[in-house]
Amino acid sequence: MAGSSFGTIFKLSSFGESHGMALGGVIDGCPAGIALDIDLIQSELDRRKPGQNKYVTERKEADEVVLLSGIFEGKTTGTPIGFTIQNKDQNSKDYSHIKDKYRPSHADFTYEKKYGIRDYRGGGRSSARETVCRVVAGAVAKQVLQNIGVEFSTYVMQIGTISLDSSDFYQKEQIEASLLRCPDKEISSSMETLISARKLEGDTLGGIIQCIINNVPVGLGEPVFDKLHAELGKAMLSINAVKGFEYGSGFSGVTMPGSEHNDLFDASGKTKTNHSGGIQGGISNGMPIVFRVAFKPVATIMKDQETINSKGAKVTIEGKGRHDVCVVPRAVPIVEAMAALTILDHFLRQKSNQI
Amino acid sequence: MAGSSFGTIFKLSSFGESHGMALGGVIDGCPAGIALDIDLIQSELDRRKPGQNKYVTERKEADEVVLLSGIFEGKTTGTPIGFTIQNKDQNSKDYSHIKDKYRPSHADFTYEKKYGIRDYRGGGRSSARETVCRVVAGAVAKQVLQNIGVEFSTYVMQIGTISLDSSDFYQKEQIEASLLRCPDKEISSSMETLISARKLEGDTLGGIIQCIINNVPVGLGEPVFDKLHAELGKAMLSINAVKGFEYGSGFSGVTMPGSEHNDLFDASGKTKTNHSGGIQGGISNGMPIVFRVAFKPVATIMKDQETINSKGAKVTIEGKGRHDVCVVPRAVPIVEAMAALTILDHFLRQKSNQI
Amino acid sequence: MAGSSFGTIFKLSSFGESHGMALGGVIDGCPAGIALDIDLIQSELDRRKPGQNKYVTERKEADEVVLLSGIFEGKTTGTPIGFTIQNKDQNSKDYSHIKDKYRPSHADFTYEKKYGIRDYRGGGRSSARETVCRVVAGAVAKQVLQNIGVEFSTYVMQIGTISLDSSDFYQKEQIEASLLRCPDKEISSSMETLISARKLEGDTLGGIIQCIINNVPVGLGEPVFDKLHAELGKAMLSINAVKGFEYGSGFSGVTMPGSEHNDLFDASGKTKTNHSGGIQGGISNGMPIVFRVAFKPVATIMKDQETINSKGAKVTIEGKGRHDVCVVPRAVPIVEAMAALTILDHFLRQKSNQI
Amino acid sequence: MAGSSFGTIFKLSSFGESHGMALGGVIDGCPAGIALDIDLIQSELDRRKPGQNKYVTERKEADEVVLLSGIFEGKTTGTPIGFTIQNKDQNSKDYSHIKDKYRPSHADFTYEKKYGIRDYRGGGRSSARETVCRVVAGAVAKQVLQNIGVEFSTYVMQIGTISLDSSDFYQKEQIEASLLRCPDKEISSSMETLISARKLEGDTLGGIIQCIINNVPVGLGEPVFDKLHAELGKAMLSINAVKGFEYGSGFSGVTMPGSEHNDLFDASGKTKTNHSGGIQGGISNGMPIVFRVAFKPVATIMKDQETINSKGAKVTIEGKGRHDVCVVPRAVPIVEAMAALTILDHFLRQKSNQI
Repeated sequence: MAGSSFGTIFKLSSFGESHGMALGGVIDGCPAGIALDIDLIQSELDRRKPGQNKYVTERKEADEVVLLSGIFEGKTTGTPIGFTIQNKDQNSKDYSHIKDKYRPSHADFTYEKKYGIRDYRGGGRSSARETVCRVVAGAVAKQVLQNIGVEFSTYVMQIGTISLDSSDFYQKEQIEASLLRCPDKEISSSMETLISARKLEGDTLGGIIQCIINNVPVGLGEPVFDKLHAELGKAMLSINAVKGFEYGSGFSGVTMPGSEHNDLFDASGKTKTNHSGGIQGGISNGMPIVFRVAFKPVATIMKDQETINSKGAKVTIEGKGRHDVCVVPRAVPIVEAMAALTILDHFLRQKSNQI
Repeated sequence: MAGSSFGTIFKLSSFGESHGMALGGVIDGCPAGIALDIDLIQSELDRRKPGQNKYVTERKEADEVVLLSGIFEGKTTGTPIGFTIQNKDQNSKDYSHIKDKYRPSHADFTYEKKYGIRDYRGGGRSSARETVCRVVAGAVAKQVLQNIGVEFSTYVMQIGTISLDSSDFYQKEQIEASLLRCPDKEISSSMETLISARKLEGDTLGGIIQCIINNVPVGLGEPVFDKLHAELGKAMLSINAVKGFEYGSGFSGVTMPGSEHNDLFDASGKTKTNHSGGIQGGISNGMPIVFRVAFKPVATIMKDQETINSKGAKVTIEGKGRHDVCVVPRAVPIVEAMAALTILDHFLRQKSNQI
Repeated sequence: MAGSSFGTIFKLSSFGESHGMALGGVIDGCPAGIALDIDLIQSELDRRKPGQNKYVTERKEADEVVLLSGIFEGKTTGTPIGFTIQNKDQNSKDYSHIKDKYRPSHADFTYEKKYGIRDYRGGGRSSARETVCRVVAGAVAKQVLQNIGVEFSTYVMQIGTISLDSSDFYQKEQIEASLLRCPDKEISSSMETLISARKLEGDTLGGIIQCIINNVPVGLGEPVFDKLHAELGKAMLSINAVKGFEYGSGFSGVTMPGSEHNDLFDASGKTKTNHSGGIQGGISNGMPIVFRVAFKPVATIMKDQETINSKGAKVTIEGKGRHDVCVVPRAVPIVEAMAALTILDHFLRQKSNQI
Repeated sequence: MAGSSFGTIFKLSSFGESHGMALGGVIDGCPAGIALDIDLIQSELDRRKPGQNKYVTERKEADEVVLLSGIFEGKTTGTPIGFTIQNKDQNSKDYSHIKDKYRPSHADFTYEKKYGIRDYRGGGRSSARETVCRVVAGAVAKQVLQNIGVEFSTYVMQIGTISLDSSDFYQKEQIEASLLRCPDKEISSSMETLISARKLEGDTLGGIIQCIINNVPVGLGEPVFDKLHAELGKAMLSINAVKGFEYGSGFSGVTMPGSEHNDLFDASGKTKTNHSGGIQGGISNGMPIVFRVAFKPVATIMKDQETINSKGAKVTIEGKGRHDVCVVPRAVPIVEAMAALTILDHFLRQKSNQI
């Protein structure tokens, strides 16, 4: 059972490799009668794309989405929405130097072993380029969720060792005002300096993204295995380069005593603190949902590395090409897309729990 | 779409509440012809059960599993394995004092809002008692996995602020030698002291469990959404009280430069470091799989707490009953069970990728 | 991916063999707050059980269902409903004579080849005894459906060559007034005579069941693959001994011209004829749903038959034991149960199509 | 949970409407390393397309498939295969006359009621044009199945009242030699005469297709709900205009005594008769799989019909346009495609039953 579908009711089935003809997917289970703004979908893709500024890869990708079905006179019809994004900047030759080599901490070795065959061009299916499909589907999901008032605030919280200590719900404008999508001007500036320095070294950086979701209805999440945070966790961990997920108090909650960690209710049913991160017993409780996602440093570095080829011989991978020093700012719309897919899926699942 | 099933090929569907007649489940997709040792299943249940020693709740639960089908003359037949565990120590009266009250950081409020009805006795379905079914299914999965050599080392790594810094594969004997399942004698002893102190205060503790899995075949995990670590993450996050999941370098990998984080291959295809935690591109690479799971402090404390009842009125929850100060040692077999379910499911999924 | 689950939202996962300890299952996705009458569930089981009268097997099976979870103070809680039915009349010795033999047109040969191991006692999992779990879950589904007014009329339409030509919605009393569940007194009587005669010959009979469902809401069924009749067809074909399924005009519609077959609308949106069987384009149209299910003659006959054993040697199967001459009357509650599971599942699926 | 996916391991998710920009889909779970002949896929599409000869609609559709991913250097890579078929002959104006009208025995009424919105152009998603995606995926599945020797013989067995009484495995050349895909020359000729006559009347015809599958390995099919014939039945019933499904002896088996219906084994494990249609207990037994599919007469007739519009007013539908008198010959590749999808899916499922 292959893994290119996400969601149970609102379901994305995606396809596509870094250097194939096109990427795309099918969104099944989108409610009917939703007015879709295609420009909003495109603008989310633009937030993800390479070449936005000097802090991300200068590789240009047009990333233009075409919606092929499921929409009639501007509204969803309840039938599946098919879409494609053509690959325009393929440059397959760029990759001949890694044809037989396993790049360290990439998926070259594991794809070859798993499938016995590998599209080595740009990482093939393992390339983060695959996430364009997530962004498209997530942008559709966000538009559906707007109808019930759900709002997202997703931003860069840490790059390398520089971090923003906040659990604020920043507005999109504040976030986008930073080239690195870190809403604190000063910290963003320090991060820029760090990235520039690391770039000169030919090295790379990881980071942390925080996502806060407001106005999620109470009652989403399906105990006991499909708890809302378990599904959010899977969604985030499925994104390239992600190494960890925590919600609410997360790993730091481990050191708190229960008496301090417990979120006490006020009379309205809200809680005075939110160590639960908006989820109790796997079910949303009406408080903001808060989680964080850890990204490892980019595996492609601009330094030569020793590795092996498919015959087990020692070879050198040269550090060259157009790559991100830090992928985290571009991952913001991906995290938000996966969050939207998960929340909408659970919103629709909860519908099916009632006669 | 309710959430009481886990897995796609090797699939557990569980049922049962804390104070109902019985808990149990159906394991579908277990390969045929596997000799099952029922005592091994029972011994895993015993590792999970309350009342093992003074550091966990003194509540006694017999937790005796009965296998009802799917086994013939000691071997699995390929048909579903049904099982039940009767509830013997029900004491429903214990819970009348919380009938209408929402315990802080429990699931009382969210279950009531989600379903409009709630079995308040002992938390009902939201009780961690539900995990007995996971332990049974996991024990079956582990026995299947033994046939291909997969081995688990799961232990307590941190309680409160006391932690063991190690990525060693400890043997089960070493782990079980500690009442707290922390294989370092000295650290275990400090943890015991901490628990005793916290118990006197009527307060509770969280912690971290580390799980290391050896001999996982290369090639398990299904890109792009069902990456092996994403599925492990979901599995772990679905366990009661879990707040975070990380694998390999995890959150600490964020601060490393790529040049240091990358795992270089040696000639045999193994890697010299294992920041990847045994998984690259979502697929097992033959190295040990390493992940950590963060548990919040137990929400039931022996102190009175202010809360609200179902009418929104302020009420007091009294701190009483037989409860764990720290649930983490008893969660070790649960983490291991969920890991086994996930690994076996992916092993069987990989079988179906090939003609 | 094993096949012991049915349904997507309202989902039954069943287990159990003819001569194991118990059969049972988990019903996940039952809406919360439904008052469940357990006697009604038991009465459906009684309609299925052997030994009801001289026209079916005289084998007695107690078939008492025990509900283990998911119900609190008489109402469903939204959590999974676990249930078991103990096997009391096991008599495993009865089956030693077929231990190594493949009974013709039974599943002995195929189970052995598929799984490499076989519980030969009474057919094991392949026994129609497995359908007790379907009847339990179907009886729950029917009670949920009562809340929205859905009604079933399921009856024997043909046994051997004797058939009732009708598409009437007979009331349950009319159906149950016949020992064979054929609501026409005269035809039922002829069928009884036929069965008695065939029994004397040691031979068996097949038949056809018709099911009519009133008050199914318009809009159920999920194009393009999960059309309502496709799901009903699968549900019926999964019942032991079923060889065919048709709805509306069915196979006889093949010979009609389109001008005659088309169902013309009247002003109210109802159709003047119902060749569509209540389903157009895979979606219920508000007319009665009408389908028919063909059962082959019982494979166990009271005559000696030549066959082979597991070593490929020729052997004789003796015709003995307590078996039905015609299983069709006892299949009526099974057909109805599977219909109820399918309709309720699609009712809940349709809920999830809307925000 | 919408219904645009088919299969569990080898899974097609399709999209597209009759008059949208394109149809297409994602095939997930195709084994890696399979050499794919794209011309063979295209030739299956050509067998389905309109305008092949005077006995089917003269409407021309180019139906050119483009494979977008999942293939590298001529072989499958194990990653999803995305594909599209552009709509070229759209002529949307043709359909303005039915914009607000519900065509009898079409899906206009039910789509409108289900979704609250309807793409009325050519039936939108309910058009049989959707089946191009099934044919593409089925053609891929057939090429995978060729590697294990599975062969299909699918042909027209009946049109209106003219039928071929045979259970022979006809070769593809014999079938394709007939414009109507009925391999008996004389009967095919009578069918042609019947179609020509019915066309003059402006009326339409239904029919029956038989499919025989050789060399299916023993052991495919997943008791108890996903029996092989139950899954084949669902597959067939999901095709537009299908009203019934039977396998082996089917509905006619009802009238046979058990002693005659039972398939006796010969020494090799084969059976002397094949009333079981190659499936016993829901599992393939190594004999040819034989089933039949009933198609209703085409609903679009060249006669005026009374109907209602979306406001409930009486209106007349004019009989005009380019439509098939009998769709059954063009449905042959669709039946075969769905059969191939089902068999391959179960072949891969059986792989996952074993360690």
